[in-house]
Amino acid sequence: MTTNHDQFLSTAATGLKESAIRRMGAVLAAGRDIISFAPGYPAPDTFPWAELGQIAAELLGGRDPGVLQYGPTRGYRPLLETIAAIMARRGIATTHEDLLVTTGSQQGLDLVARVLADPGDVILVELPTYVGAIAAFRNLQASLVGVPQDADGIDLDALDATCARLRGVGRRVKFLYVVPNFQNPTGLLISLAKRQRLLDWAERHDVLIVEDDPYRELYFEDSASEADVRPIKVDDRHGRVIYLSSFSKTLAPGFRVAWIAAPPALAAKFEMAKQAGDLLTGSLDQRLVYEACRRGVLERQLPILRAHYAHKRDVMEQALRRELGAAVRWPKPKGGFFLWLTLAAGLDADRMIPRAVEQGVIYVAGEAFYVNGEGHNTLRLSFSAPTPERIDAGVARLALTLRGESAALETAAAAAAPGAP
Amino acid sequence: MTTNHDQFLSTAATGLKESAIRRMGAVLAAGRDIISFAPGYPAPDTFPWAELGQIAAELLGGRDPGVLQYGPTRGYRPLLETIAAIMARRGIATTHEDLLVTTGSQQGLDLVARVLADPGDVILVELPTYVGAIAAFRNLQASLVGVPQDADGIDLDALDATCARLRGVGRRVKFLYVVPNFQNPTGLLISLAKRQRLLDWAERHDVLIVEDDPYRELYFEDSASEADVRPIKVDDRHGRVIYLSSFSKTLAPGFRVAWIAAPPALAAKFEMAKQAGDLLTGSLDQRLVYEACRRGVLERQLPILRAHYAHKRDVMEQALRRELGAAVRWPKPKGGFFLWLTLAAGLDADRMIPRAVEQGVIYVAGEAFYVNGEGHNTLRLSFSAPTPERIDAGVARLALTLRGESAALETAAAAAAPGAP
Repeated sequence: MTTNHDQFLSTAATGLKESAIRRMGAVLAAGRDIISFAPGYPAPDTFPWAELGQIAAELLGGRDPGVLQYGPTRGYRPLLETIAAIMARRGIATTHEDLLVTTGSQQGLDLVARVLADPGDVILVELPTYVGAIAAFRNLQASLVGVPQDADGIDLDALDATCARLRGVGRRVKFLYVVPNFQNPTGLLISLAKRQRLLDWAERHDVLIVEDDPYRELYFEDSASEADVRPIKVDDRHGRVIYLSSFSKTLAPGFRVAWIAAPPALAAKFEMAKQAGDLLTGSLDQRLVYEACRRGVLERQLPILRAHYAHKRDVMEQALRRELGAAVRWPKPKGGFFLWLTLAAGLDADRMIPRAVEQGVIYVAGEAFYVNGEGHNTLRLSFSAPTPERIDAGVARLALTLRGESAALETAAAAAAPGAP
Repeated sequence: MTTNHDQFLSTAATGLKESAIRRMGAVLAAGRDIISFAPGYPAPDTFPWAELGQIAAELLGGRDPGVLQYGPTRGYRPLLETIAAIMARRGIATTHEDLLVTTGSQQGLDLVARVLADPGDVILVELPTYVGAIAAFRNLQASLVGVPQDADGIDLDALDATCARLRGVGRRVKFLYVVPNFQNPTGLLISLAKRQRLLDWAERHDVLIVEDDPYRELYFEDSASEADVRPIKVDDRHGRVIYLSSFSKTLAPGFRVAWIAAPPALAAKFEMAKQAGDLLTGSLDQRLVYEACRRGVLERQLPILRAHYAHKRDVMEQALRRELGAAVRWPKPKGGFFLWLTLAAGLDADRMIPRAVEQGVIYVAGEAFYVNGEGHNTLRLSFSAPTPERIDAGVARLALTLRGESAALETAAAAAAPGAP
């Protein structure tokens, strides 16, 4: 008799859902010629293959046991020092007490949720926000409440009102999760004035801020500068901000090397949660990343990546204007990997996916990024991985998809209208 | 004003404790000449450095994007096929539906706990059992209940009685966690007859078994054979057994590549929990492990490792007999990394640690492996990483430690005796 496994599931497992983005990955893997604007993959032709090959050969040739051995949960000590130097260049003073290497920023988000959220605790997020954060926080059965965004980031009045309303009904608000630089999925940048006001807000209301900053090095020099991506954490005098960043978008994501900077009392808890979670981040990966930093590979990559992704952003915007004109709108991405498209009201990006696959293009339907069920007429396009030629071709396919969907809707509406034959 | 962070901690985080083994790591890092029998590290001189260097050079030279890119959460497809072949050699038929690559077996244990255990659910474990499992399960606020072991593994009568007692008071028993082969920390091997009876027990009581099997390839040919390490999972006809294994002990732990085999309904939940937890296991690491398997590197390692660790076990046993004779006892390890020492009653291995560090040797005090607070006069010695010369020297230091501690206890007892000056 086959075992009934449902009876063994935890409450968290019963609620687990597959990620919308990873589901798109399964469509891709089916092998048809599909142009993918779905996952936020960096462009593999920008990876520093030759330098990494050289470093790997030296590391494995050197036979230092630590390269392949277990190591400290906090991370490889020289890498922690390198991360402290990177943080200092971003204006944030840290010591080893503040820092922890994580197995990608996804683990960082998981650790944050595990250490801070009990089931039912409120986590405030932007509308829309990163699906990976939604997954990590929901996995802890936290209650996610969304706050709308303006063109310069999260709406502070709405934030105030939301927090007051929740506290008014006795809810415990643990932290606000924000992606201030080139947000995933909208590409928006929070203005500097607003960053300061967010920190004041957190102090005033005794709430923490989780600042997720994977894209900050990828500002596009025609529309943003290093001054614009100043972390909220820079001005954090009282230990309000937990800061996450990563090497995934600047070196390569296959390494799974990222970090958290947090007040020491919290960093110690993150470390213990990581001990129980995966013991340590890959040793060889940490050494490779460390050597790539030490040898200046990362530093040399940054201007190349900014130009590379800015160009692809240009190609995508031009194609969208050419192919779709006034039928869609989007905020101009000033950095990062994403362009956030709003369709005409009435269109549903999720329902449109089969037609898009038919045309040979995929994206992520926007509603996956909304914790409140909105966003049906939005979608996220990643311009980071495809070549410029594929971006052009993919947008043309997207335009066919949209025109087909609009026509089908009109036909259906006409058929449903009174007096139709 | 500095923020009070305690108020933000989750219930799980409030209860988090540092691992005893990792704490020993901190003692080591202080840089004195200390011989460590503490962490269960594989011997780095056995790592196939040259082959891995060659593979890394080819992988990075080939510039296949997947080597450094994000990839599927389930794992790199060819590696999953390799794992299925490894499982078949162990007598277990699996498909992709059953398998998931994990970021070390520690993540496997974490996923198992997240998917199966709600706070307060009972997980049955051996007395003593692996501390990493204790940490992972406690992190989910599961209630761990221990079952004693005989020379051939877990005591089935005690298991029956424990389960009946718990159910009698309305507790929900989710699974039994066992390490059947060369258990960490005792080195014990569960007999074949007992394995079958364990499976019958699980069927009869509608409980799952989590079978953790990292050491099975490391049987010592003078005292065990491949027939003795037959997984419980081989005879699992009804999806009762979740099986974990790893490349950490046979290739290298720095890769963080392990796997779970489970009934498809559970494997799908593990995959979703992993999506939220770290998205994927390192891509380069998975490729390196895959290539090491494909090229026969792993297969060639196994007899070398068996001989290597059997020899170190011999050296440690001889040194213990020479230095400590009847003062201690232990079950002969038939495989794996560990020797489990029981001291005279009244000695406390944890309290003895400062004296051991003074003498220049460390171990893990046994009580860390006991979920019921027992084991004060036990300790775990790892013979896997130190050289034979260091094993000899370390056991001599341990003997000095024990003699010093016994003498100090006698002095204290004499001083406390009536009539003492």
